[in-house]
Amino acid sequence: MESSLLDTAAAAASLCPAAGGRRRAGSTAGFLSCSCSSRDCRVSASYSHSISRMLSGVRSAARRKLFRADPADLLGVANWPEAGGAGHQQQQQQHWWAALEHNFVLESTDDEYGGVVVDTDRLPADKAAFARSLAASLSYWKSVGKKGVWLKLPVHRAEFVPLAVKEGFKYHHAEESYLMMTYWIPDEPNMLPANASHQVGVGGFVINDQMEVLVVQEKYCGSSLDGVWKLPTGFILASEEIYTGASREVKEETGVDTEFVDVVAFRHAHNVAFQKSDLFFICMLRPVSSEIKIDETEIQAAKWMPLEEFVKQPFIQEDHMFQKIMDICIQRLRKCYCGLTPHHVVSRFDDRTSTLYYNVAEPEDVNCSAT
Amino acid sequence: MESSLLDTAAAAASLCPAAGGRRRAGSTAGFLSCSCSSRDCRVSASYSHSISRMLSGVRSAARRKLFRADPADLLGVANWPEAGGAGHQQQQQQHWWAALEHNFVLESTDDEYGGVVVDTDRLPADKAAFARSLAASLSYWKSVGKKGVWLKLPVHRAEFVPLAVKEGFKYHHAEESYLMMTYWIPDEPNMLPANASHQVGVGGFVINDQMEVLVVQEKYCGSSLDGVWKLPTGFILASEEIYTGASREVKEETGVDTEFVDVVAFRHAHNVAFQKSDLFFICMLRPVSSEIKIDETEIQAAKWMPLEEFVKQPFIQEDHMFQKIMDICIQRLRKCYCGLTPHHVVSRFDDRTSTLYYNVAEPEDVNCSAT
Repeated sequence: MESSLLDTAAAAASLCPAAGGRRRAGSTAGFLSCSCSSRDCRVSASYSHSISRMLSGVRSAARRKLFRADPADLLGVANWPEAGGAGHQQQQQQHWWAALEHNFVLESTDDEYGGVVVDTDRLPADKAAFARSLAASLSYWKSVGKKGVWLKLPVHRAEFVPLAVKEGFKYHHAEESYLMMTYWIPDEPNMLPANASHQVGVGGFVINDQMEVLVVQEKYCGSSLDGVWKLPTGFILASEEIYTGASREVKEETGVDTEFVDVVAFRHAHNVAFQKSDLFFICMLRPVSSEIKIDETEIQAAKWMPLEEFVKQPFIQEDHMFQKIMDICIQRLRKCYCGLTPHHVVSRFDDRTSTLYYNVAEPEDVNCSAT
Repeated sequence: MESSLLDTAAAAASLCPAAGGRRRAGSTAGFLSCSCSSRDCRVSASYSHSISRMLSGVRSAARRKLFRADPADLLGVANWPEAGGAGHQQQQQQHWWAALEHNFVLESTDDEYGGVVVDTDRLPADKAAFARSLAASLSYWKSVGKKGVWLKLPVHRAEFVPLAVKEGFKYHHAEESYLMMTYWIPDEPNMLPANASHQVGVGGFVINDQMEVLVVQEKYCGSSLDGVWKLPTGFILASEEIYTGASREVKEETGVDTEFVDVVAFRHAHNVAFQKSDLFFICMLRPVSSEIKIDETEIQAAKWMPLEEFVKQPFIQEDHMFQKIMDICIQRLRKCYCGLTPHHVVSRFDDRTSTLYYNVAEPEDVNCSAT
């Protein structure tokens, strides 16, 4: 893959592991490595890996045969791979023999950072076999200098979870269908990348030609919220665009169709949900319909409210943050303000289309006087 | 708590559950509810909860006594709580008796959305007790009309994971020290909030008075990246500010101290790592030192490079996204562009300080001509 100017989070993961800090995660399809750990390996990583894959793929009858034979004889290998010397070779042979005799190394693929990704679809069938293989695999991976181990356990393999914990695996993240566990082998700072850290919400500032803003009263609010009118807001969905999510939320809550104009501002807060952080994007939207039809499961009422009346609500007047946000929105209306507009961009670097939000002022951009 | 104008992700969780869509998560300290599910409960939720708490806190000897006595006698309760009628009362009694006889309901607290949060510190000690209690608890929670169940299992309770899966719990999310599992009881769309969906990265565009940009060559890069100079980039840390993280990354990689100026643009990409999304903020930073001292574990080299030379690199010239980003940065340098600057704001709504990024142009803001 090509190098990147900016080494975006995706890019970095794909190309340039950060050895000095937390490594950036790439796609789940695999991590591209820029270094080969085999230089540090006493046993050729590729050779060991070949043996490992072969051994773990052998059928039961053949396995039993292997257990009773000298590995070197079976493999037709006159000498073990060069390593530290005769004494070390003997140790390696003994290690190999022990591994062969009792267990198979789990099927896995190498990642690009000197680590391994266990093949989820080739896990042993039962707990005992898994426990033995896991222990043997760790022993093997340590001996060949592997670093991080990724073990993704589907929910139907939940019984393997305590076995992995017992071996020293840690939880990394989970989704409904699986739990990802990791093991960091070397005695150095853990370089495995972290999982997602932020939830992302959007709010729609929708104003019509009569200077009326689209507001809602939510249904499930305590007495302190009675009578409060707010902007439509919500989380964006998985893999959803900010500019799509904002319009969707407005449509769902009020029935009004809108066009996305720009991101006016965003708020960053921490320790919000599950000790994660929160990014909330305040978006300017242009209405393309006016009829209101509320989502009655969530919304008590919705209406077009004169902007002046909206900002005079006490809870806005008395709150530093909301006042500031309304100041910004009003500046935006007065065309004294440049929001960030979404633009599709393609990068050869990671072969993906993404959305870049910026406000390079164009002469025809009547909303922004930054020229 | 006061209502909110914007119903930010944090706000929504604290105040207004979204019944029509995914509910927004609040702080882990608990969810504030705007509705009481007990109106729908046939057995008073508070009464049942009291009994539940009492029962699950009784010691072993007393438990054995309870198992053999009529609950009403033990509790000194002449009548069961009013419910549907005598026949229904009898059913409830039988239900209670069965629950008492075999299991305890797990210690838990009610959340504000008609759900329960199991008390992690009061889990049964062994697997068998946990399994029985979990089944009994679900039966009880169903009978009293509870909705979502949150079960946070610390890593040292990993053996409980398969038991919870067997009962129908699903994985929600995990951190190194725990796995959060959930159970959605009612036969209606699952309203439990999702976990974090985005990783957040920053890149520093640092340019000095000589129009030289601070660039790095990363150490672990493949042959296709040889000779490429890029901006310093990285993930922000947990609960770290964007404006802090950008300066930190530059400092770590190059040794150069900087002041944050503004967010110039941001990129939004999907399906990046662990099928999550990625937000990358391109930040303008002002250098306050010039001496370079690289992080040798990660960086091959760093230097001040003439801007013109930097943008002429083929991988920038030949990439749509990188070209666009450099155009923006250059516009920003020419003061034809307004970035988003960070401002601390406080909201009485959620009692927290957060950072609002916006660019309301001030007359003294010489970097932005949007007035």
